[in-house]
Amino acid sequence: MNQNHLNEYVKLIEEQLCEFIPKENVMQEDVIKAMRYSLLAGGKRIRPILVLEFCRICGGDVKAAMPFACAVEMVHTYSLIHDDLPCMDNDDMRRGHPSNHKVFGEDIALLAGDALLTMAFDIMLSDETVKQVGAQRASKAAGILAKAAGVHGMVGGQVIDLMSEGKSISVETLKQMDEYKTGALISAAVSMGCVLGGADNVQIKAAEIYARNIGLAFQIVDDILDVVSNTEILGKPVGSDSQNNKCTYVSLMGFDNAKNAVNKLTEEAVSALDCFGEQAKCLIEFAEKLASRKK
Amino acid sequence: MNQNHLNEYVKLIEEQLCEFIPKENVMQEDVIKAMRYSLLAGGKRIRPILVLEFCRICGGDVKAAMPFACAVEMVHTYSLIHDDLPCMDNDDMRRGHPSNHKVFGEDIALLAGDALLTMAFDIMLSDETVKQVGAQRASKAAGILAKAAGVHGMVGGQVIDLMSEGKSISVETLKQMDEYKTGALISAAVSMGCVLGGADNVQIKAAEIYARNIGLAFQIVDDILDVVSNTEILGKPVGSDSQNNKCTYVSLMGFDNAKNAVNKLTEEAVSALDCFGEQAKCLIEFAEKLASRKK
Repeated sequence: MNQNHLNEYVKLIEEQLCEFIPKENVMQEDVIKAMRYSLLAGGKRIRPILVLEFCRICGGDVKAAMPFACAVEMVHTYSLIHDDLPCMDNDDMRRGHPSNHKVFGEDIALLAGDALLTMAFDIMLSDETVKQVGAQRASKAAGILAKAAGVHGMVGGQVIDLMSEGKSISVETLKQMDEYKTGALISAAVSMGCVLGGADNVQIKAAEIYARNIGLAFQIVDDILDVVSNTEILGKPVGSDSQNNKCTYVSLMGFDNAKNAVNKLTEEAVSALDCFGEQAKCLIEFAEKLASRKK
Repeated sequence: MNQNHLNEYVKLIEEQLCEFIPKENVMQEDVIKAMRYSLLAGGKRIRPILVLEFCRICGGDVKAAMPFACAVEMVHTYSLIHDDLPCMDNDDMRRGHPSNHKVFGEDIALLAGDALLTMAFDIMLSDETVKQVGAQRASKAAGILAKAAGVHGMVGGQVIDLMSEGKSISVETLKQMDEYKTGALISAAVSMGCVLGGADNVQIKAAEIYARNIGLAFQIVDDILDVVSNTEILGKPVGSDSQNNKCTYVSLMGFDNAKNAVNKLTEEAVSALDCFGEQAKCLIEFAEKLASRKK
């Protein structure tokens, strides 16, 4: 994706996220601060970018898709806050900053996560949003997100992760876990963009292949970076996966095979977009950018 | 509400809840068990009953409203699971049984709550449901639930509760907290029923007054029962509020004033339903039943 186009999206997304979270409210001040803290802590904004760009190349209105883009990012952020809690991964750091519960306490972190998940649906289904995109598309897109975030999607992947802890698992199980844990939400973002843009069936199929391939490539790159990057760039300790005895694509496939897999998946993602022609240029660059990222 | 009519609703609601939660899935078995454990642990099913009955008296199709009734109960159940967690109220018991995290562990309990909240939106926005009730009503009803469950509703009330802990608060603050914490969801249930039944503005206004009054009466009765009931009937230790130094309506208003307030609120709830005529008979009995309940 063209860097300017990408930066423009990120700017719009962050402005909009900032606007959706209420600023002042004496009573609920603490939880709102906690919501803002994690939601506006940077991040690559991959999921909302995918919503907006797929909406655009399918011929939809990017501005009207913004609440849906923000909703996916809210769901992603809630999952990070809950994942970091002591009863889950017990991570003190996230994106180079203390994790939410380290700053606000476990109780507020839990509620901030709950509130972000709930707010995602609130903004997608507000009277204003429904008026903009129509009830049919709004309910369809919100329904896609609900399915992807649930027990047969992201939460399900989290459960598989918990169950696999300390066990040696196969590449296949790892893939399946990631397909639920992170792939489902990336696929949802892409599908939501398609729905909001009024995509036809050929476009939806192509978008799904793109999503599945970049989703898996993204996870493998994460594992590679855990081995080769340095703590400063990554914002978390390097080598933490192997220290935690976690099965990774690198530990299971070997370093070179993992790198080759990323290239192959990215190629498949790119070629899936043939049906979009010139319009897909940005999404092709985006896939390549994700594959070659250093953090 | 006529006892037979009520029992019929409860039976239908519980059958439907049971059906919505997937039964078998090796990978996510633990979290599904945890979801079922809390969702099917009895409870009064007040919120789903209100969805169904308001839908009916406004002229809607009760069967089509069922996913929305179940969704409200899922949101209610998720909030109980998260409330009981050690980082929140740290309650070992709920409805006479060990609380979710005591049985399944904190990690699974957290995820079961997340999954129930997400599933609520999944079932309201599924293709099947949208086809049944129409996208306009589905998105409107789901949007009402999202707003009521969020930071300006249930979660917000939870935050006020946390912030008030150990402090002496006024009756007004306690009322405000309960309006968010439990009132919002009860009002949402009623409004959703109205939307699904195609209510007019007069009906919606009347239903809102009913909801606000029975919601507050419900909370006051809870506090009264904490003083006068016994552990066996209540399913939790009697007097736990005063032992925990919690401000209650009884401690703030005195016992007799609290009882009088319940009666007054219930009367106001009942008279608000005048515009529904004979049709409101069940809802009138329901309000009276809630006011005179022993657990």
